Amino acid sequence: MERKEFRDLASPDDAREAIASLSLEGGIDRVPLEDARGRVLVARLDAELDVPGFDRASLDGYALRARDTFGADEADPARLAVVGEVHAGEEPAVELEEGQAVEISTGAVMPSGADAMVPVERTDRVEPRSTERASGETASAASDTDGDVLVRTSVAPGDNVMFAGADVAAGERALGPGTKITTRDIGLLSALGIDEVLVRAKPTVGIVSTGDELVRPGDDLESARGEIYDVNSYTIAAGVEDAGGEAVLYPHAGDEQDEMERILREAAAECDLVLSSGSTSASAVDVIYRVIEEQGDLLLHGVSVKPGKPMLVGRLADSAYVGLPGYPVSAMMVFRTFVAPAIREAAGVPEPTAATVEGRMARQERYGEGRVRLMPVGLVEDGDGEPLVYPVDKGSGATTSLAEADGVVEVGPETDYLEDGEPVTVQLFSPDVRPPTLLGVGEDDPTLNRLLDGLENPRYLSVGTRPGLRRLREGVPDVAVAAGPLEREVEAAELGRWSREWGVIVQAGNPHEVETLADLVDRDLRFVNRTSDSGLRASLEAALEDLAADSDASARDLRESIDGFDLGLRAHESPARKVIAGDADVGLGLAETADRLDLGFVSLGEQPVRVLANPDRTEKAGVRELAAALAERD
Amino acid sequence: MERKEFRDLASPDDAREAIASLSLEGGIDRVPLEDARGRVLVARLDAELDVPGFDRASLDGYALRARDTFGADEADPARLAVVGEVHAGEEPAVELEEGQAVEISTGAVMPSGADAMVPVERTDRVEPRSTERASGETASAASDTDGDVLVRTSVAPGDNVMFAGADVAAGERALGPGTKITTRDIGLLSALGIDEVLVRAKPTVGIVSTGDELVRPGDDLESARGEIYDVNSYTIAAGVEDAGGEAVLYPHAGDEQDEMERILREAAAECDLVLSSGSTSASAVDVIYRVIEEQGDLLLHGVSVKPGKPMLVGRLADSAYVGLPGYPVSAMMVFRTFVAPAIREAAGVPEPTAATVEGRMARQERYGEGRVRLMPVGLVEDGDGEPLVYPVDKGSGATTSLAEADGVVEVGPETDYLEDGEPVTVQLFSPDVRPPTLLGVGEDDPTLNRLLDGLENPRYLSVGTRPGLRRLREGVPDVAVAAGPLEREVEAAELGRWSREWGVIVQAGNPHEVETLADLVDRDLRFVNRTSDSGLRASLEAALEDLAADSDASARDLRESIDGFDLGLRAHESPARKVIAGDADVGLGLAETADRLDLGFVSLGEQPVRVLANPDRTEKAGVRELAAALAERD
Repeated sequence: MERKEFRDLASPDDAREAIASLSLEGGIDRVPLEDARGRVLVARLDAELDVPGFDRASLDGYALRARDTFGADEADPARLAVVGEVHAGEEPAVELEEGQAVEISTGAVMPSGADAMVPVERTDRVEPRSTERASGETASAASDTDGDVLVRTSVAPGDNVMFAGADVAAGERALGPGTKITTRDIGLLSALGIDEVLVRAKPTVGIVSTGDELVRPGDDLESARGEIYDVNSYTIAAGVEDAGGEAVLYPHAGDEQDEMERILREAAAECDLVLSSGSTSASAVDVIYRVIEEQGDLLLHGVSVKPGKPMLVGRLADSAYVGLPGYPVSAMMVFRTFVAPAIREAAGVPEPTAATVEGRMARQERYGEGRVRLMPVGLVEDGDGEPLVYPVDKGSGATTSLAEADGVVEVGPETDYLEDGEPVTVQLFSPDVRPPTLLGVGEDDPTLNRLLDGLENPRYLSVGTRPGLRRLREGVPDVAVAAGPLEREVEAAELGRWSREWGVIVQAGNPHEVETLADLVDRDLRFVNRTSDSGLRASLEAALEDLAADSDASARDLRESIDGFDLGLRAHESPARKVIAGDADVGLGLAETADRLDLGFVSLGEQPVRVLANPDRTEKAGVRELAAALAERD
Repeated sequence: MERKEFRDLASPDDAREAIASLSLEGGIDRVPLEDARGRVLVARLDAELDVPGFDRASLDGYALRARDTFGADEADPARLAVVGEVHAGEEPAVELEEGQAVEISTGAVMPSGADAMVPVERTDRVEPRSTERASGETASAASDTDGDVLVRTSVAPGDNVMFAGADVAAGERALGPGTKITTRDIGLLSALGIDEVLVRAKPTVGIVSTGDELVRPGDDLESARGEIYDVNSYTIAAGVEDAGGEAVLYPHAGDEQDEMERILREAAAECDLVLSSGSTSASAVDVIYRVIEEQGDLLLHGVSVKPGKPMLVGRLADSAYVGLPGYPVSAMMVFRTFVAPAIREAAGVPEPTAATVEGRMARQERYGEGRVRLMPVGLVEDGDGEPLVYPVDKGSGATTSLAEADGVVEVGPETDYLEDGEPVTVQLFSPDVRPPTLLGVGEDDPTLNRLLDGLENPRYLSVGTRPGLRRLREGVPDVAVAAGPLEREVEAAELGRWSREWGVIVQAGNPHEVETLADLVDRDLRFVNRTSDSGLRASLEAALEDLAADSDASARDLRESIDGFDLGLRAHESPARKVIAGDADVGLGLAETADRLDLGFVSLGEQPVRVLANPDRTEKAGVRELAAALAERD
């Protein structure tokens, strides 16, 4: 077996520099105003017109000459002849002379000759003082018959008038180059009459996933062949869009070299940046090397960071290229740390400052690997509302641990361990990440799942009863959920409990006629267990102890005589699913699960499920919300 | 003139309650995974399969029985016969027996019989110990000839194997109802093979703008008729999308009642919420009343909040309806405070906590109007990096002041004034609002505009030299830019200065043959001035004083003999534009402006433009950046 070895690893800074040296910029887009939100202006925009474009009445009332109102007050109003009216959107038909006023609507053009206006509330409309007129007058001169207005206040020139250009004046610098257009800027652009803007084109990022074992979500999966769903393609595409880029998903390439090469070249021709990921096979690396050698430039191979060692940076034809590690968590860590900032830079969209949170480590964490570590972490608020930070790690093969993380802490290569309580800086996955209102750990349970559905933004890690209680003692979660007998006293406040019926799940109709636990011991049945972390397992072990006490055999003997006792599955439904699949005759489980999946069930007893709260967190909003939901259940 | 009066104003809380009582929820959308980012899950998603779906090798190496390696170390390796290989995406063809190993790739299925694997780094491939074979063997049995492997370490059962379901187990609660799908969740959904999700439909929000004076951006504007561009439509549409809604812009309705009614009814039939704004005319309100009366329900009319008094809440047919004030700033304030939260609620997208900043008032601000005030504010960091908050207000008719604001402070009705230094909470317009790195105020100048273009996210308010210096003394901005003679000493650090040529701008070719300032005094020319806030005006006044000293007339006489001297425009290009439009013969301005607009120019002198920094802020990054840009200019 040939393997590429990564010696002389580049430093993270070198990797950043290498990526920065690639040009990811797209061109320029012309977009209509309604699509401009979130885009980035290419060049400065100066106002091409005055806003407003005319002297504008600020209120409903009368336009007049300020001088005609001097000295007027409630007791001694000024009397002016109303010679017309102007509404918004009309050109004034009259010119104002001394002693005259024009009725005017908010937003209308001030008529020529007027230099101020008075709001209608400070006026009274009256009949004209003298009504003698020529009898032959036409309707067009009706303005002469509008009567008079009494103005009960004195106004100064300019009062209640917004002069042309007072809001924005032609020639003024309106928006600078690089402005990320937000709602407020849309308002300014609208006011200037601009319905199209030149913005930076989003960098196009081609995503090429390789690996024979990968299947696109939605397609059928053959687990027996070792197929898994392709996590990286859609996840990296979403990350690219978070960073302001435009993701282009290329068809899955498998490990066939010609096909892979064709797709890589196509992506390089069409995109500003090509990202590959998904295959760790030597053949994939060979193809990438070949394409880079013929048409590109390899800048860097291997970075001293964990995860992310097997990272490639270079050029493919006219495109930039970064090879990401295959494991989804590693791929996303490397993407976020090294690639996303470069996409943001090219898109002109800087990382919001709000994307950082300062917190304290919830427990000690050891390293000392001499590499920068990118540690996915979760956040939880302690009893005082201060953020606690805990590492999230399901192992390097895990595809989903990021779903349980809120951000990343970068730990320097010289750091051997982070102390409990040590302050750290968390880069949130995005500025709109909200730490959970409640962090729970422990047993997997359907009643609990329904309770969680009623809460706002909870996070629950179904690690099993035993690890849940351990973590509660360590002080990280808000609550632990424990099923079955408690092995030892826990210092915790019990928020509530319920009871669940447990036993063994069998095929519908119970074809093997299982009736008691003894049947599992005595007969040749294929059994599927839960792990020893599970509270179900603890109740099963206790039942076996009881059975042993009633018989001659030891509990250990009983266990050994059950085929499959040692194979423990993690989730509460997994044994039932093995029974459905025909891989087992009997599985440990809950009555509720059997019922829901239309399977047979042999009850072995009831067990309590307790919700135990960290005593320091009982006043926390999320904990109180859960306590209320528990109380409502009863 | 008839006017609707708003008596018995509702409280802001009543308004919130009235809007909350309207149902804005849309239905359910089924969206493909690639479009799921940012959408909100309707129901809980449980894992329907194990991830991984099989026991999976975590590394490249050899699958084996752990028991066969017990006791092995560097000095005494275990020797196993290699009986085949499995790559990722292949179904294992072999079953492992005692003493055997299978070469395995990262991610491949563990062959039956193996319970652990050892990484290739801890092994050596060797020739088989015995090579005697039957000569008639076929190629298909080639695995028998794969040789042996020396394993230089002992492994335990399960080592380097990720068991089926270890990442996510079937039946596990994956994502709760109401989850806003982010990149990390896309990873989990991918891993579960889910390529479509049921999400909340975005509430559709119809936007109806009315008012004869409004023109859609991009169309021609007739200022003489009092037309202005419609600011509300696109701005509110952008705000709707910020809040997670889908905006639908309806054609502009003018003030024609039948048309307005038709559009309102159409919007009500098609949308979850209809927002109207733009017209303050009584006829628009009449139409709305009529439609509500016939087909709906008026819940509330008028709210005790400033701005926003003339607000309507009700139902139009099956749609919710909110009438916003016509002035753009008022409309957006009311939209953000009352309507956006309801859209967020319906969309299931809560306001990110990051959308709030705590700061101190930069100066005292008086109110005492007995209404809640929604105060648009800007943010600037003081010398210690602490946020200072200052009100932004260009008057109620201003359409663009929000472009200079970062958020809103809500001031209670009982508050008479906010003290200088008083802590306030700012609701940012959006969580990605970044306060400016530099806040400058003062003279409008083309050289300055170019300097600003080179800075990252500056904000400059071109209020003129005199107000700029006043604000600098008040301690709000980082820098003030002052042109012309300084009236009095300012306590400030001069970051740099340049000189600009000023004079009067005339039509190309100087048809009126203007040569000196005296020509303006002596001849019958229409002149356009700048406001007395401007440094250009200050130099002009000084030049007139000099001219007066050289003649018999007083400076005041000289001023009065210039036609248009008292009409001062705000921006440095405005007089030049009046000359272009033929509204004036001569305008005060800069040589650079004349040059750029291909106009004639008569120089009257040079004036300094000084950049003066708040002495407490000279170390602030944005100020240093500006100082560096100034130094580079020289």
